[in-house]
Amino acid sequence: MNEGKMVSISHIAIAVRNIEDAEKLYETALGLKVTRREVVEEQGVRASMLETAAGDTTIELLEPIGQNSPIYKFLEKRGEGIHHICFKVDDIESALERLKKQGIKLINEGPRPGVDGTKVAFLHPKALNGILIELAELPKE
Amino acid sequence: MNEGKMVSISHIAIAVRNIEDAEKLYETALGLKVTRREVVEEQGVRASMLETAAGDTTIELLEPIGQNSPIYKFLEKRGEGIHHICFKVDDIESALERLKKQGIKLINEGPRPGVDGTKVAFLHPKALNGILIELAELPKE
Repeated sequence: MNEGKMVSISHIAIAVRNIEDAEKLYETALGLKVTRREVVEEQGVRASMLETAAGDTTIELLEPIGQNSPIYKFLEKRGEGIHHICFKVDDIESALERLKKQGIKLINEGPRPGVDGTKVAFLHPKALNGILIELAELPKE
Repeated sequence: MNEGKMVSISHIAIAVRNIEDAEKLYETALGLKVTRREVVEEQGVRASMLETAAGDTTIELLEPIGQNSPIYKFLEKRGEGIHHICFKVDDIESALERLKKQGIKLINEGPRPGVDGTKVAFLHPKALNGILIELAELPKE
């Protein structure tokens, strides 16, 4: 039964000014491998996913593609660094329902479409020690 | 053959002011489970490890136990938030050797003893988009 449980940590998202430079750095220094690149127009970002040799948690590099991008604003205000942590959940509606009942402040009250058919929602950083947390439910197979 | 490869993301460390409150929050809101608590005197912290239902990457909560703790200074300067990301490596000496050759700035030139018989070292945040990265090699079984 799905209960809105956190199954695993899906990825750690890092805001960068130049995604090609960052890719090279993470590949060369950390030996990570780029597995996917995409442009997410509605969030105004170019994204690259990088994986380790064996772990299931990945690194997501994010570069803004316009000044309206939340990542652009993040870079202006705080500089490069970790932008959010994404938890994979088994059932995002149940998770959000439970969080609301617990009084956890949400940015998205309901799920919205993410990349590759995922459903995603962000919790408010004020709720969790200043950390922006994304929940993502993968599409059913 | 071990080449100083990043095997997986071991944990994401979060600096908090009150570890009991944070544990409760992460257990209740995110459904994580505390699997280990310890005091690391030489780093001046109390640490709690929390895991998700199925993922191998964990969350490490860190509360300072004195004003000399790097976590105390972090909290004073930046407030609560993500302190570092730890990558599990197959061979920490090889990894540090390679990083040095690549001109990556290190905080620890050689490995030092971590918890539970691990060998650990920190890279300089300037080297990687402002992110503090720890490498950890687990003891041989």
